[in-house]
Amino acid sequence: MARPSSLSGFPEWLPPGRAVEQHVLDTLRHTFELHGFAGIETRAVEPLSELLRKGETSKEVYVLRRLQEAEDADRDDRQLGLHFDLTVPLARYVLEHAGQLTFPFKRYQIQKVWRGERPQDGRFREFTQADIDVVGAETLPFHFEVELPLVMAEALAALPIPPVRISVNNRKVAQGFYEAIGLADVDGALRVIDKLDKIGEQGVADELQTGAGATAEQAAQALELAAIRGNDATVADRVLALGARSPLLEEGLQELVSLVEAAEERVPGVMVADLRIARGLDYYTGSVYETTLVGHENLGSICSGGRYDSLASDGRRSFPGVGLSIGVTRLLARVLAENLATVSRSVPTAVLVAVTDEDRRRESDTVAARLRARGIPVDVAPSAAKFGKQIRYADRRGIPFVWFPESGEVKDIRSGDQLPADPDTWEPPEADRWPQVDVNRQAAG
Amino acid sequence: MARPSSLSGFPEWLPPGRAVEQHVLDTLRHTFELHGFAGIETRAVEPLSELLRKGETSKEVYVLRRLQEAEDADRDDRQLGLHFDLTVPLARYVLEHAGQLTFPFKRYQIQKVWRGERPQDGRFREFTQADIDVVGAETLPFHFEVELPLVMAEALAALPIPPVRISVNNRKVAQGFYEAIGLADVDGALRVIDKLDKIGEQGVADELQTGAGATAEQAAQALELAAIRGNDATVADRVLALGARSPLLEEGLQELVSLVEAAEERVPGVMVADLRIARGLDYYTGSVYETTLVGHENLGSICSGGRYDSLASDGRRSFPGVGLSIGVTRLLARVLAENLATVSRSVPTAVLVAVTDEDRRRESDTVAARLRARGIPVDVAPSAAKFGKQIRYADRRGIPFVWFPESGEVKDIRSGDQLPADPDTWEPPEADRWPQVDVNRQAAG
Repeated sequence: MARPSSLSGFPEWLPPGRAVEQHVLDTLRHTFELHGFAGIETRAVEPLSELLRKGETSKEVYVLRRLQEAEDADRDDRQLGLHFDLTVPLARYVLEHAGQLTFPFKRYQIQKVWRGERPQDGRFREFTQADIDVVGAETLPFHFEVELPLVMAEALAALPIPPVRISVNNRKVAQGFYEAIGLADVDGALRVIDKLDKIGEQGVADELQTGAGATAEQAAQALELAAIRGNDATVADRVLALGARSPLLEEGLQELVSLVEAAEERVPGVMVADLRIARGLDYYTGSVYETTLVGHENLGSICSGGRYDSLASDGRRSFPGVGLSIGVTRLLARVLAENLATVSRSVPTAVLVAVTDEDRRRESDTVAARLRARGIPVDVAPSAAKFGKQIRYADRRGIPFVWFPESGEVKDIRSGDQLPADPDTWEPPEADRWPQVDVNRQAAG
Repeated sequence: MARPSSLSGFPEWLPPGRAVEQHVLDTLRHTFELHGFAGIETRAVEPLSELLRKGETSKEVYVLRRLQEAEDADRDDRQLGLHFDLTVPLARYVLEHAGQLTFPFKRYQIQKVWRGERPQDGRFREFTQADIDVVGAETLPFHFEVELPLVMAEALAALPIPPVRISVNNRKVAQGFYEAIGLADVDGALRVIDKLDKIGEQGVADELQTGAGATAEQAAQALELAAIRGNDATVADRVLALGARSPLLEEGLQELVSLVEAAEERVPGVMVADLRIARGLDYYTGSVYETTLVGHENLGSICSGGRYDSLASDGRRSFPGVGLSIGVTRLLARVLAENLATVSRSVPTAVLVAVTDEDRRRESDTVAARLRARGIPVDVAPSAAKFGKQIRYADRRGIPFVWFPESGEVKDIRSGDQLPADPDTWEPPEADRWPQVDVNRQAAG
């Protein structure tokens, strides 16, 4: 076997990187569970017909074929593809199991997804998403649109990453405003507004007129709307000062203001209403969210989502939802590449029990078992080499303590201190028991 | 969207089932980490050429194709398939990253794998495996062949499942014995012995002669060997009493006896040497392991593995290993189907904070935040319905406590007891804080 090479777009971490990832996943899960979200997993595959219901994602799907299957096998409805997000599977899961779920159904889901895209610009072909959603039967109160981004703000704040900024908007504001000023092609206008960063104000003004049927005045008004940002009621005042009025606009402004006001009270400085946020507005029906890592805005959004009035429908009942999805791999790749977080050692082990002689390995195993029985992670030296070599085994892995069964002593190999100890009572310092993942103050500073 | 149906071979659990699975995975991981195994994950795909290196698995592979890819795209070496186990990826990972790993490399890996088999007989097309392996550079001492099944015995004993029996054998015993009695086709003889359950002793005796070139006497001796079972040194005595002698046989017997003796000391009654265990012997080079669930032997092995002298080789260095793999999904499907384990509630939530009036939702949110700040999982009622309805929301999910912010009281809805409580100091009983997964004594009894 020649030395294999990595596959572009399929990231893989060495053990210390995986330890950071595991810490991130554990922290997210813990926060989600503290808020009452139940964990589920869905199968990795869905029928291709389900995956292609939205045409624009079709280019991203990986289709499965069994190796022994005839190449020209019927491409029927039962052909399977790997899921490219966790929302399509959630919709299917809710419909399939609606009779056995309780609504509102609050679930989190942390799984890998796959997209057959060109791997570039921080995009991956295989990556982990961490989603939370609340799904209602027929109705879903607005307050969940406040609750969910706050759960994500809390979850992200608990991670060893820089602070985040959550930008929010509301589909009803844009739609109500455009309709009030007579701009009929709402979706078209939103797609143009989304290009502000790329083509600038003049470019957007031109394209609104050539591509979205706007007059010069409508284009100017749309740009004035998109320029508004803020985290309090003045956002609504400034929108209304532009002169447009409609019940939908006013409903949207009320929701947007109550969202940023609640956020300002509970997580000050994190959330901002930004009326240029357009992405996803043609899919969502209420609040929308995007999240950037402060100082790493070029990474793009690391946590996005919104409210959709019809996540799923079986013809009889519809299931509205609101949810957000963290791009864990995108986030983690940056954290690891820039060494923003570190783990205190590359193995779980807190104590290496030395072996004096192969014939006495069982004594070392016994010490190890007694320590483990009290929840201390322990390894036993792989060979009865000279103690210096056994200490190097610990040192290379970052294991802080080496236990010598013959003398009944334990050595802190960082300080060199060696003291008598009883395997039934000795405790490592709490910070040494398990590997610690922390923000790397040097890199972050 | 019509009501979707399940896909045969792709199991999915409702939230309570997932809670049991999560508990199983957490318990396995905790045990593996207590023993110093570092966690890794590998990408879900490998080059098809790697997956097909062992021809006999080719029928099981799912090949990936991007939807927009030309149907007649070159089937080159870079074509990708989903991994069907975690051993092929481990071998590749070790070779790819050998320069950055420390050896012996102890890793655990818990991931989904896929096989395009006919879903039947408890076989799945998507399932989770939990593997531990130790990989050495060039050498790997025998004592790891003792350590690894003992780690698995400890991990399995910590799960909410019936007791297990680990059956062990050693390739060197069978090979040394067959060679000593002049039976040249060792692999062929092992494949026949493997059919003992299906075709019986006479069938095996016949087939050893017709298919593996054995004489009648050799066939009888092979059957005598296969009949030996035990958990102490008498196993070796009974093998040697059959008369065959070779250095390889004696080495194998010594290893086998030291394995079962160590196991008998550390986990009495769990491990037994069983010389008919043949599966995998043509792949492994030393100890082999199979595990059955007592009372559920028809499920087949739920945890198998062994020693392989060359897990991987890059031409310069070879990497011997020993490992075992738990078939988590197979195990879990049985546990859930027979209700062997139960979870105390279907959501993480310990406390539901009631909402008196939608205008006062923020008071309920504040109580919830204060409880969560002390690590108590809390949900807030979705609407300010009548309290009776809010209590039913809790009851249907198994949430034990409902908090009434207006009166400042908390009610245990199981007993009906309602007492004043302070959200900054109140604690639920420890057994109520998080959902508890336990053996279902009724089903198990």
